[in-house]
Amino acid sequence: MRCDVVAVGTELLLGQITDTNSQWIGEQLAAAGVDSLLQVKVGDNLARITALLQRTLAETDAVIVCGGLGPTHDDITRDAIAAVMGVELHLDEDVAVMIERMFASRGRKMPANNLRQAQVPEGATIIPQTRGTAPGLICPVNVGGATKVIYAVPGVPHEMQDMVQRAVLPDLLARSGEHAVIRSRTLRTWGESESGLNERLDAVIARLDGEGNPTLAFLASGWEGIKVRLTAKAPTETAAMELLGRWEAEVRDAVDDVVFGVDEQTMESVVLDLLRERDLSLGLAESVTGGLVAGRITNVAGASDVFRGAIVSYASAVKQELLHVPAGPVVSAEAAEAMARGAREALRCDVGLALTGVAGPSEQDDMPVGTLFVGVAIADEVFTRQLRLPGQREQMRQMSVISALDVLRRELLARG
Amino acid sequence: MRCDVVAVGTELLLGQITDTNSQWIGEQLAAAGVDSLLQVKVGDNLARITALLQRTLAETDAVIVCGGLGPTHDDITRDAIAAVMGVELHLDEDVAVMIERMFASRGRKMPANNLRQAQVPEGATIIPQTRGTAPGLICPVNVGGATKVIYAVPGVPHEMQDMVQRAVLPDLLARSGEHAVIRSRTLRTWGESESGLNERLDAVIARLDGEGNPTLAFLASGWEGIKVRLTAKAPTETAAMELLGRWEAEVRDAVDDVVFGVDEQTMESVVLDLLRERDLSLGLAESVTGGLVAGRITNVAGASDVFRGAIVSYASAVKQELLHVPAGPVVSAEAAEAMARGAREALRCDVGLALTGVAGPSEQDDMPVGTLFVGVAIADEVFTRQLRLPGQREQMRQMSVISALDVLRRELLARG
Repeated sequence: MRCDVVAVGTELLLGQITDTNSQWIGEQLAAAGVDSLLQVKVGDNLARITALLQRTLAETDAVIVCGGLGPTHDDITRDAIAAVMGVELHLDEDVAVMIERMFASRGRKMPANNLRQAQVPEGATIIPQTRGTAPGLICPVNVGGATKVIYAVPGVPHEMQDMVQRAVLPDLLARSGEHAVIRSRTLRTWGESESGLNERLDAVIARLDGEGNPTLAFLASGWEGIKVRLTAKAPTETAAMELLGRWEAEVRDAVDDVVFGVDEQTMESVVLDLLRERDLSLGLAESVTGGLVAGRITNVAGASDVFRGAIVSYASAVKQELLHVPAGPVVSAEAAEAMARGAREALRCDVGLALTGVAGPSEQDDMPVGTLFVGVAIADEVFTRQLRLPGQREQMRQMSVISALDVLRRELLARG
Repeated sequence: MRCDVVAVGTELLLGQITDTNSQWIGEQLAAAGVDSLLQVKVGDNLARITALLQRTLAETDAVIVCGGLGPTHDDITRDAIAAVMGVELHLDEDVAVMIERMFASRGRKMPANNLRQAQVPEGATIIPQTRGTAPGLICPVNVGGATKVIYAVPGVPHEMQDMVQRAVLPDLLARSGEHAVIRSRTLRTWGESESGLNERLDAVIARLDGEGNPTLAFLASGWEGIKVRLTAKAPTETAAMELLGRWEAEVRDAVDDVVFGVDEQTMESVVLDLLRERDLSLGLAESVTGGLVAGRITNVAGASDVFRGAIVSYASAVKQELLHVPAGPVVSAEAAEAMARGAREALRCDVGLALTGVAGPSEQDDMPVGTLFVGVAIADEVFTRQLRLPGQREQMRQMSVISALDVLRRELLARG
């Protein structure tokens, strides 16, 4: 089964926005075992969209078209699809009523051009809209006797993602003759390189390759670590989850020491959960990261029941006055220790986490760029760790965030 | 002149990385007045890359191919181009020496497969590599009697960008018969919608449309505001800069009140510059943004000569203890005022900037999601502003960062 992707929008070609839709779709298709061999951006031009769809269908089994389903005169994906199918557009009464209701529910009058979105090519099936006003379309096309299919979905990412998961992928799999359920599980890791993970998982990967299901992929996520993703295909949800559970255990046997979370968990959400379970409050003292750790933690909804605050002690005098750091080099284990203790006292919290280091461009206190000291004060004990991180400024600072949180995570787990 | 773009790499199709290269190239081509009508991602497959290049050249004047120039067996862009040109690859001695030198200068021995990067199709011109090991290629192709051209550049963004600016765009313009210099200037705005800017610039846009040069484009950058970009084409650098200067003045006449910076300036870099010029130090008290303002400010190199630090007072008790906020609602003008004053005192700085508000998901202190109070303490005076921002959590918090910095920027300018 091959399904290519077409992203419609002149603003994509002009570089005014990034096409992240075809990347997301490519990831879903790969996980579903569907080949996607060309992904194309095209502008809002009827002749070019039509020609591109015809050419793509000649080579593939299916094509997913994103964008161009809105209400304005620029939105011509429907017209191009009707041209490729060789049919007319007609007004779908149900869709029209649905759009009018959406406007009414927001207390707004529907501009007349919104009814363009109720225009449907003859023979197409509707994918009902649940988030925006434009429905998606499943459009069978006869190409030299074979039935191929165009899926049209909106360009708004969350509307597109909803329709692809709810309607497009199941339809694609049904057409491929596979009545399978596909489920993924992602183990998030920190502290091991991709080649290191690969080596440690060698035996597991060899056995997976033999069985062919689930598949295992490494996804590098920069300063968010490396994800190990298992994707299982099975006749039922239960069977897929059972497969995932069994192989997750195998993967963990080999690399569990570097797994910090699963699926949507982040390092900060994991640390907050561990603190919450232990009924511990958290305060920070940040120097090199200048507030980045606090900013990340407070982006987790519900952080306020654990997180008390932070002292961003960028100037040395602030370290000394508010955190009682002794005079002397501020990129040092002594400073990190004093900062952690100072944060715990000043913010009246159970755990103080401190970061001091050198982000560059030049060295400081005779310490090279990339040096990070992490201090942890917990239950009247204080300890520090010295790390050496790669990169300059932005990268070094971001790596410091996740590295310091990982130090705290390991300590909390070790204490049980 | 039409130049399409091909991004090579199976990892792009699988969604493992985002293709930002074709977006960046699209932006440059648009600014240079070159049409780019299809931009395609293709995997590391010789037959498919070759077929795609042939098809693309049949429709366009030129194509830029990114990626597939590395040293491994997956890097087959050179082979595909040679096939399209109908020529052989030969080892370019100069390139080979250059690659060997690059390894030597880093004290490393060159693995033999790196010589693949010195393979050049007969008839191609080298774009010398200055940042990585792979050179770029300018490859003329005879298509039905017309000379068209394939440009090959590496997939590593900074190497690609360097070669496109240094060699590809000048060559493209020379081929189009235009010996022109193209220069852009971007005015960065905050506080006005795109349609509002459009309306206020109506007369300027009409005159620009009449003259056709420079062109004006609006680029929405989300919570970084809206950019107004002027792009001028002229026979010389001096003439292009003169055109930009003249029309920048016209644009500023209409919207100068919302312009905060030019080109690479950010709101935080502008505020730091204004403080530095006035010899004022800055301290923050952050509640709703939880450290994001400090994190952004400290990402500007050289922030340390102005920025003293921040108190992230997430818990109400921290606001009261460290910043002397009176008991009562913490999302209020009174709290913002006390926080600004408290930051100035605790951090011993000239200017205290404070943010308190409601990021959601639910309202707080009877204030709706999106409420932001900004407090500014400067020279023993304190004032506050109440703003209403759109969005939930992440968006509201990021809008708060730039909005609060803009309040301070306007105050500093007003004081002269």
